[in-house]
Amino acid sequence: MMDIVLIGAGNLATNLGKALRGVGHRIMQVYSRTETSAKALADVLQCAYTNTLEEVSQQADIYIIAVKDTALSEVAGRLQKGREERLFVHTAGSMPMDAIPSVRRGVFYPMQTFSKQQEVDFKVIPCFVEANSDSDLSLLKELAYSVSDVVYELNTENRKYLHLAAVFCCNFANHCFRHGERLLEEHGQIPFSVMLPLIDETARKLHLLSPREAQTGPAVRWDTNVMDKHLQLLSDTPDRQKIYELLSKSIHDDQL
Amino acid sequence: MMDIVLIGAGNLATNLGKALRGVGHRIMQVYSRTETSAKALADVLQCAYTNTLEEVSQQADIYIIAVKDTALSEVAGRLQKGREERLFVHTAGSMPMDAIPSVRRGVFYPMQTFSKQQEVDFKVIPCFVEANSDSDLSLLKELAYSVSDVVYELNTENRKYLHLAAVFCCNFANHCFRHGERLLEEHGQIPFSVMLPLIDETARKLHLLSPREAQTGPAVRWDTNVMDKHLQLLSDTPDRQKIYELLSKSIHDDQL
Repeated sequence: MMDIVLIGAGNLATNLGKALRGVGHRIMQVYSRTETSAKALADVLQCAYTNTLEEVSQQADIYIIAVKDTALSEVAGRLQKGREERLFVHTAGSMPMDAIPSVRRGVFYPMQTFSKQQEVDFKVIPCFVEANSDSDLSLLKELAYSVSDVVYELNTENRKYLHLAAVFCCNFANHCFRHGERLLEEHGQIPFSVMLPLIDETARKLHLLSPREAQTGPAVRWDTNVMDKHLQLLSDTPDRQKIYELLSKSIHDDQL
Repeated sequence: MMDIVLIGAGNLATNLGKALRGVGHRIMQVYSRTETSAKALADVLQCAYTNTLEEVSQQADIYIIAVKDTALSEVAGRLQKGREERLFVHTAGSMPMDAIPSVRRGVFYPMQTFSKQQEVDFKVIPCFVEANSDSDLSLLKELAYSVSDVVYELNTENRKYLHLAAVFCCNFANHCFRHGERLLEEHGQIPFSVMLPLIDETARKLHLLSPREAQTGPAVRWDTNVMDKHLQLLSDTPDRQKIYELLSKSIHDDQL
């Protein structure tokens, strides 16, 4: 079991902190720029907190930095002094390991969309680890396997593509749901909740079929009759129409 | 309980036929152009079958036409003779009720993505009904409520938008998953299965939050640093790059 300091108190830090504590690690301290956020998470994790980087403990086995990408390098840099022997990792899918200046550095990227409202089962969340030395890599793998059943070693270059793939699978898919919601809002009195069984099934199918095999609808059949009618319905919303055209063409090209 | 003839033996006819039979309706007969398809479904539903439209029973309470959109009008037209008093409905979200020439006509649209491999719980599938008379509308609602807990009356005009919304929520979202899959195939040795917890959670969140509230990622934060790096990674795949640009912009515009 390890002594851990969490730098950051957002959704990821909250979910990860709970999972780590749940399997017996000691969360020594939480840092957040905002005192109320630091205190809120510290209350949950029953640990100390601070909103001053200089007051962060120097005794942790590992410092997990889960702050905004743009703040990462600065925060990591300011924490070096007095902690030169310590292991620092960040949790950002899109950032290189070398965003951290420490000799002992690494990445611990749990790939999931976290929200404070919804608890997640950390055991099924894939965690991607990278480190600057074999011994720290082993240590990070051990940490990852303590909270998750799915752990991969992945270098910075390939992690960039993984993160990009996650943007497609999560953010962009979710935005397609948003367009569905807007279409219902604008036409008729049907609540968006009617879409949930379809969305659930669309996700569930992928446990059995690849996305390409699971594809249905007018674009995969290249049913220009239906597609032309759809484009007509979208003539008042040219941006949405453009998305329809581009995604339909991309679905079609994928069959060739 | 009603006497039903199914015209068509595809995924939708199969799933609907099973659900109708499961709650006690009598499936009298299955028609399919292809004899082996007709027989296969008839075996499941333990009923008669034919591949000749002229041999379709004249005695059913309701004829459910679940054939390709392009074949619908022709098939419905050829079935009129000798069945002038009968109720015909189709199951196509994108087709107008008037694609059926009968006096007694309607629509029974169960909104779901069906596959033969995967059984679905019909009870949660929203069914949208429309009919040419109040009495047939009542009859269709009764039929729909016998297999589903979620039934809406919806006219042809609004159903077009519903169907379009379903294309966004199912086909287009699935295609975003496909791009995620391809990115993983092309970079590193990570299997697509690592995306399933993220995809499941993206769907699950919508039971609690609207798609707009649930949105996360670089585009909603308008994090041009991350987005520029992503666009760079996509420079070899200009079509995918264009999709990235368009969806990111659309996510951003949605916040304004």
